[in-house]
Amino acid sequence: MQEVSYPWEYLREQINAGIPEEIKSYLDELDHSDIVLAINHLKLEERVKLLSLITPEDAAELIEDLPWVQALRMLEELNASEAAAIIHEMRSDDKADFLSEMDEADAIIDELEVEEAQSVRELIRYDDDSAGGLMITEFLAFESSATVNEVVENLSANAEEYEKFNLQYIYVTKQNRFEGVLSMRSLLISKPDTLLSTIVMEALSVNDQIHLDELIRFFDSHDFYGVPVVNDAGELKGVVLRKDLREAQNEQINTEHLETQGIVGGEELRTMPVWLRARRRLSWLSVNILLNIAAASVIAFYQDTLSAVIALAVFLPIISDMSGCSGNQAVAVSLRELSLGVVKPFELFRVWIQEVSVGLINGLVLGILIGLAAWIWQDNMYMGLVVGGALMLNTIVAVSLGGTIPLFLKRMKVDPALASGPILTTVTDMFGFFLALTFAGWMLGSL
Amino acid sequence: MQEVSYPWEYLREQINAGIPEEIKSYLDELDHSDIVLAINHLKLEERVKLLSLITPEDAAELIEDLPWVQALRMLEELNASEAAAIIHEMRSDDKADFLSEMDEADAIIDELEVEEAQSVRELIRYDDDSAGGLMITEFLAFESSATVNEVVENLSANAEEYEKFNLQYIYVTKQNRFEGVLSMRSLLISKPDTLLSTIVMEALSVNDQIHLDELIRFFDSHDFYGVPVVNDAGELKGVVLRKDLREAQNEQINTEHLETQGIVGGEELRTMPVWLRARRRLSWLSVNILLNIAAASVIAFYQDTLSAVIALAVFLPIISDMSGCSGNQAVAVSLRELSLGVVKPFELFRVWIQEVSVGLINGLVLGILIGLAAWIWQDNMYMGLVVGGALMLNTIVAVSLGGTIPLFLKRMKVDPALASGPILTTVTDMFGFFLALTFAGWMLGSL
Repeated sequence: MQEVSYPWEYLREQINAGIPEEIKSYLDELDHSDIVLAINHLKLEERVKLLSLITPEDAAELIEDLPWVQALRMLEELNASEAAAIIHEMRSDDKADFLSEMDEADAIIDELEVEEAQSVRELIRYDDDSAGGLMITEFLAFESSATVNEVVENLSANAEEYEKFNLQYIYVTKQNRFEGVLSMRSLLISKPDTLLSTIVMEALSVNDQIHLDELIRFFDSHDFYGVPVVNDAGELKGVVLRKDLREAQNEQINTEHLETQGIVGGEELRTMPVWLRARRRLSWLSVNILLNIAAASVIAFYQDTLSAVIALAVFLPIISDMSGCSGNQAVAVSLRELSLGVVKPFELFRVWIQEVSVGLINGLVLGILIGLAAWIWQDNMYMGLVVGGALMLNTIVAVSLGGTIPLFLKRMKVDPALASGPILTTVTDMFGFFLALTFAGWMLGSL
Repeated sequence: MQEVSYPWEYLREQINAGIPEEIKSYLDELDHSDIVLAINHLKLEERVKLLSLITPEDAAELIEDLPWVQALRMLEELNASEAAAIIHEMRSDDKADFLSEMDEADAIIDELEVEEAQSVRELIRYDDDSAGGLMITEFLAFESSATVNEVVENLSANAEEYEKFNLQYIYVTKQNRFEGVLSMRSLLISKPDTLLSTIVMEALSVNDQIHLDELIRFFDSHDFYGVPVVNDAGELKGVVLRKDLREAQNEQINTEHLETQGIVGGEELRTMPVWLRARRRLSWLSVNILLNIAAASVIAFYQDTLSAVIALAVFLPIISDMSGCSGNQAVAVSLRELSLGVVKPFELFRVWIQEVSVGLINGLVLGILIGLAAWIWQDNMYMGLVVGGALMLNTIVAVSLGGTIPLFLKRMKVDPALASGPILTTVTDMFGFFLALTFAGWMLGSL
């Protein structure tokens, strides 16, 4: 069998050998996805050593590709000046994102150049969920008193540096205060001595304090590639790019999904320390187990009925699980519709009606299926009625709750992702057990 | 109490009144998100009537903002020429996406202009998951024999139409075959009579057949805004924009999440017909109920033990549910790591080790919790041992399966989203019941 060398094994050897040029040329060969995969398979010490063996510029580029929590951990292992050198090469919003989470932030910022340090400190002060928290400070701006020719010369002279800048629009300021934009096209078709003030176009801008949700509405209403961000004094401070906003939204969605599955903190990589992963998962599981015990106590309450109809014990987990499944389908649709914006949190009744209609149909089908199974197995029609009837009714309860709980929590400004599932399953379990055991109690004579 | 008029109520009135100018001005006032919300609250007939009351251009813009399945349904209610008028105003990839799903596609395409019809027919032939399926045909290309001045004149003359084009790069062709790109910057700094062939820069392109995954790798390795797409003959056919690829990826992630919750088809809006929603949810639920019955038959097998220790019936649903929760946490992390690319489907052992370590810790804690609850309630230490021991071991089983099943399914080229959950819960239920009842059987004397 041919010996396969995985990218990380080869990378590990090279890191141990410690020859920068070879590491660089190897990394240049690799795809981004191979690099992400390889880094994930190295030990923390190896990853950190890798960072020190490549240029700060390459390190910054590498880090940009990695999952954020992993990159943060790597940076935290470096000393302040090493970290500063790498952070210096990052884009402005990434700089701020990392520094706002790092313990050694002040020490690192002290290592940066004065102007950069000041800029970063400003950026850090913004809320993550604000325009200021999402904007980048890499943009081109010229005073309105400049000419087209000056702009063109500036672009020629700095061609290489401006590679990474967003050059759809060039901003025009008047004593630092935002005036408007110039499109590349207008520059192209204007005479060289034209004053920017004569070809500048008015443009919308947003205040640096506005919240993510408002920013989303803004980009929904306007087909812009990016929007300039101004402070209260009207000074141009940065640009929010549509794609960065979309990325922020998508991170929100990923976080939400992981939370519905009980991943507290909205992210888990298996390279995180075991105790951290266990602790976070346990924080959700332990709440769940208490709720489970509370729900199962309903069964304890009806223990006499259960003794009389032992076969029922086979169906209780089925009723519990199937109700949970039906309810979670409704939860998923509610979370999806909320994120699409097609429903508002106050529309509890509308959603309930839409869920009950499906619940009646599905409850009937599932009730019949389980009822038949019970009837056949126990050779007793009443068993079928008890079990089938309980599942049928509980399905309707489950979808009703599943559909409305997320809206209700959202209304209460509580994050619906972590809480909807446990609340749903606890209530439907209790009710399902109650229904089955009560029905059984009514029909004890026939069972 | 003040009477609140919801956007859709007002819109409904206007649709019934049927005055195009008023509807247009009302829609212009509304935010995108208000429009999405309002449309979602109209009946299908009202939505369709709305489309006929606004210009095809406005209709296309409106449709672009709506959830895709909803827009599709609206278009299908129109007659061929109405639909064609609206589709004509859409971007090329959206045209193709809708037409490839509509029954009346041929009739609609016949209503389009000849050139457009041909272009659309070509686009439809591509796989959704290929470069051709994702590309847009709105790009600017000039023959290499043209001059900078000709380009500038063309841009000036068509300023308004080119508003929506991606003008970061202009493509250069030689008899339709792709030669390279021109940046706006290079146009800006070149003399007017310069031949494009002298300033054209070589650029990478992709073949129109390549798969989405390969396209993702391409964009990972190159920091491009978009990539030109060529056919086998080397002719320039379209452009894939990075943001469209990202959107396709995010749709994949959304679909995956909804599927893990049992939403077959990866999308459900409550405005879809009730029977469709019920049928799709049922298709997953009915498989689940059969699996549940299979799992619960383990309990039936041990009915004698259960009769002797009725209290155990209280703990069986708890063991089942908690194992499922622990397992699903692991499933969520696996799906996340697979999508991030930090783990490959063949790494079953590595993932298993990482999960077992967490499973041991969490299993111990949960086992102790439930064991104590059982001990206290039944005033019997052996009950605690049975229940706690079963949950502890089953937790380890659950996280082991939860972590590895998604990878295993992915390796088998089976979509892990829909199947992982049911397989996991069925096996862990069976094993959990087996453990609890077997342990109880061993300790019957002491219980």
